[in-house]
Parts: sequence; C-alpha cells; structure tokens
Amino acid sequence: MTPDDIEALTFDVFGTVVDWRSGIMRESAAVGTRHGFAVDWAQFADAWRGRYQPLLSDVRDGRRPWVPLDQLHREGLEQVLAQFGIAGLGEAELVDFVRAWHRLDPWPDAVAGLERLRRRYVLATLSNGNVRLMVNMAKRAGLPWDAVLGAEVARAYKPSPETYLTAARMLDLPPARCMMVAAHYYDLTAAQSLGFRTCYVWRRDEWGTGEKHDLPADHGLDLVVEDFGELADRLGL
Amino acid sequence: MTPDDIEALTFDVFGTVVDWRSGIMRESAAVGTRHGFAVDWAQFADAWRGRYQPLLSDVRDGRRPWVPLDQLHREGLEQVLAQFGIAGLGEAELVDFVRAWHRLDPWPDAVAGLERLRRRYVLATLSNGNVRLMVNMAKRAGLPWDAVLGAEVARAYKPSPETYLTAARMLDLPPARCMMVAAHYYDLTAAQSLGFRTCYVWRRDEWGTGEKHDLPADHGLDLVVEDFGELADRLGL
Repeated sequence: MTPDDIEALTFDVFGTVVDWRSGIMRESAAVGTRHGFAVDWAQFADAWRGRYQPLLSDVRDGRRPWVPLDQLHREGLEQVLAQFGIAGLGEAELVDFVRAWHRLDPWPDAVAGLERLRRRYVLATLSNGNVRLMVNMAKRAGLPWDAVLGAEVARAYKPSPETYLTAARMLDLPPARCMMVAAHYYDLTAAQSLGFRTCYVWRRDEWGTGEKHDLPADHGLDLVVEDFGELADRLGL
Repeated sequence: MTPDDIEALTFDVFGTVVDWRSGIMRESAAVGTRHGFAVDWAQFADAWRGRYQPLLSDVRDGRRPWVPLDQLHREGLEQVLAQFGIAGLGEAELVDFVRAWHRLDPWPDAVAGLERLRRRYVLATLSNGNVRLMVNMAKRAGLPWDAVLGAEVARAYKPSPETYLTAARMLDLPPARCMMVAAHYYDLTAAQSLGFRTCYVWRRDEWGTGEKHDLPADHGLDLVVEDFGELADRLGL
C-alpha cells in the first residue's frame, strides 16, 4: 500500500477522535452534584458506555427496528441512573444529559492532524453516532469532516458490513481506496474483511488506564500509529 | 417566524450556491476545443442541464431504479454530445467531463455568507447531487457544510417528499425548524408543503440573462433575498 492508493479516510469517532470517557465523567458529575448525588463518576461513565454494545446488538441482530444512537444513549442512561440510585431528573435535563455525547472533546492531536490529512484525503465519519450527534460534536470541537456517514445513513450499526459498504458507495470508491481509522481492532477487522485499508490508533487513555489490550501482535493491519499526527507523517503529508 | 425558530438551513446547490452554467460552459469549451469542435457552448451547457429533469423523472416516477446524479449526468452528456455532433472522446475523458459538475464555482457571495450563517445554524446540502459530488465541490470551493444530505442519503430525488423529510430526520429536527434555501420556486413549495421554512434567493444570472421568472408575486414564502449576505442580515447575524 502507498499513500496514493487511498482517496478517503473513514473514522471511528468515540475513542478514536474524541475522549468520550473524560467528557461523560465531567458532564455526569455536574448533573449528579447538582442533584446531591456523589458516586464514582468514572464508574458511572463506564457503566453508561457499557450499555452500548447490548443495546446496539438488539438493533444489529434484528430484535428491534433501527433507532438512532441518541435513542440508545437515552435508554442506557435511564438504566444506569437506576443502577446508581440517581433520581429526580426532569425531562429537559435528561434530553440535555444525552447530549453530553455531542459535547465531547477531541484528543489533543485530533484537530491539527485532521487539518493536515484533509489536504489530500476526503475525511468522513464512519461512526455509530447519528448524523446530528456528529454534526453538533464537529461544530463544537472544530472537526473538519467532509462528510458525515456511518450508521444512520446506512441504517445499520457497525460492525455490520452494510455500514462500511454504504460509506464507500457514497464516497464513490471501491473499499480498497478507503482507509478505516479506529482505536478498536474489531472495527478494523470488519472493515478489512470488506477490502478497506486499515489504521489502528493507540488511544491508550481511552479507558483511563494508559493501557489497551485489543491489538494482537500478529494484527495484519496496514498501519499502527500513536495519533493523527503520526498518521499524517506516515502518509507523507 | 423569528430567526430563533430555525436551527438548520438546508440548501439547494446547483444554481443556488454555485454557478453551474458558467462552469459547464468553460469546461465544455475546453474539451470541445481540444477535439476541434466549435459549437455554442452556452447552448451546449443549457442542453446538458436540460437533460436533467427528464432523466430525474424516470427515477422519481419509478421507471428505473435509483442511480446517483453522476450517472444521470453521464447519460445526459452522451445524449448532448450526439446532439451537437461531437465525437471521439475516450472513456477517461468522459469520466472527467462528468466531473465538471464537481468543479463549479460558487456565486461571489456564497462562501462568505455561509461562513456567517454557520456561526448560528447547522448548514446542510439538500441537493439532488450525490455525496461525492457535493464533497468534491465543497473541498474545491471551500463551502463549509456541516453535513451533506439530499438525494443520495434519501435515495429519492427532489421534489419527492422523502428527500426533504430524510434531511430533517437526520438533523433531528421537525421540518418547521429547518429553512430550505433555494433559487427555484418549485423546490421551496415542495419543502414548504412539508412544513419547512423557506427562503428564495434571486440568482438572476443563473441562465445568463440577468432575469428569472419563476417567483410569483403572491409567493407565500418566508424570505426572499438577493444573496447569502442578505440572508445573514435578515437572520440577524
């Protein structure tokens, strides 16, 4: 693979572009403190994120019709509030709380790295987040996407093949001319099996531990980088 | 209606944001001259654009399955080349010629106006152009879209209701909180019938005549403006 083989970079977003855990901790603590609850907000954030895969699976496996991620975040929030014994939030507050996922901060290298990458490549989101979520996040954080693709435009959640293939089709590219960029190995192997090029980004602090363990030594991916600056370097920008 | 009623502006693009006619004349003349053909390139551009509605109608009315606009532009080009007696173009040249629609220049006020408008509103394309066409155009011209919506994500061509309603749904807004911005009355009445707010933009030079005649005196639209600068003024930006 050479950099010229690629025309578009497609990005996972939660964990790869933005630091969801710190943002959700911060917003959760603010809401909880306002209502007089003192819980471990790191545990709360992890529990909310932990509701993600089971709720997604219900849609992916056809046990319920497609709904956008905002809706799944709302359902997960209600479960986690009950789990932590937090009560008394009004409807407007719940709606705003779900929008905490729209207000996540990018990793420190993300915006500058994307600005370099967009000089040569089409940059598109390929996230499970719905369009409005991605749009609000990008406006607030200054993420220079050329297109917001992913689950909602495909009406299918990753790692369903349709999510990736719809993005490539809308970019008018064969998968081999797209590179999937993600901090999660399962996302990259799904894309790779469909012909995408792949780049794993270490986001060692995604879970606040400084460590990640999902990348096997014999990974077979095209690139493995520390951050988007290194990705731009590796692509000769 | 007050400016605060609106959260998103959805834009028609060909004619409203970019000057398709000058761009297609310029690119057609360059190709034709290279092959030794001298025809009236304004007539050629108008003829190519004239193929647009019949080809779209075949899809809209279900006489053929959905295909992206690039494909319809290709079919229209082949018809118009034959009509003008132009022959001898190779496949790569035809592919590039169709991409002339990706290389159109914005009207002089468009980029500065959009930059003002995006400070408060979500800006989305709601064009019949496919996603890659909109992305290439925006990268070249510096159009600051927050999202590329429209025909391809809805798999339906304007003025089908589904095109507008899919955009509003992906913006997570009721139609009444979206304003359709277009230089064509039929586009605005279709959006208005679904609950969109509407803004007509005079683009008097769209057809090179300095005149347009499609806006009735009793139009019933929310706003009528000369350009995007006036739209930003009228919305208090």
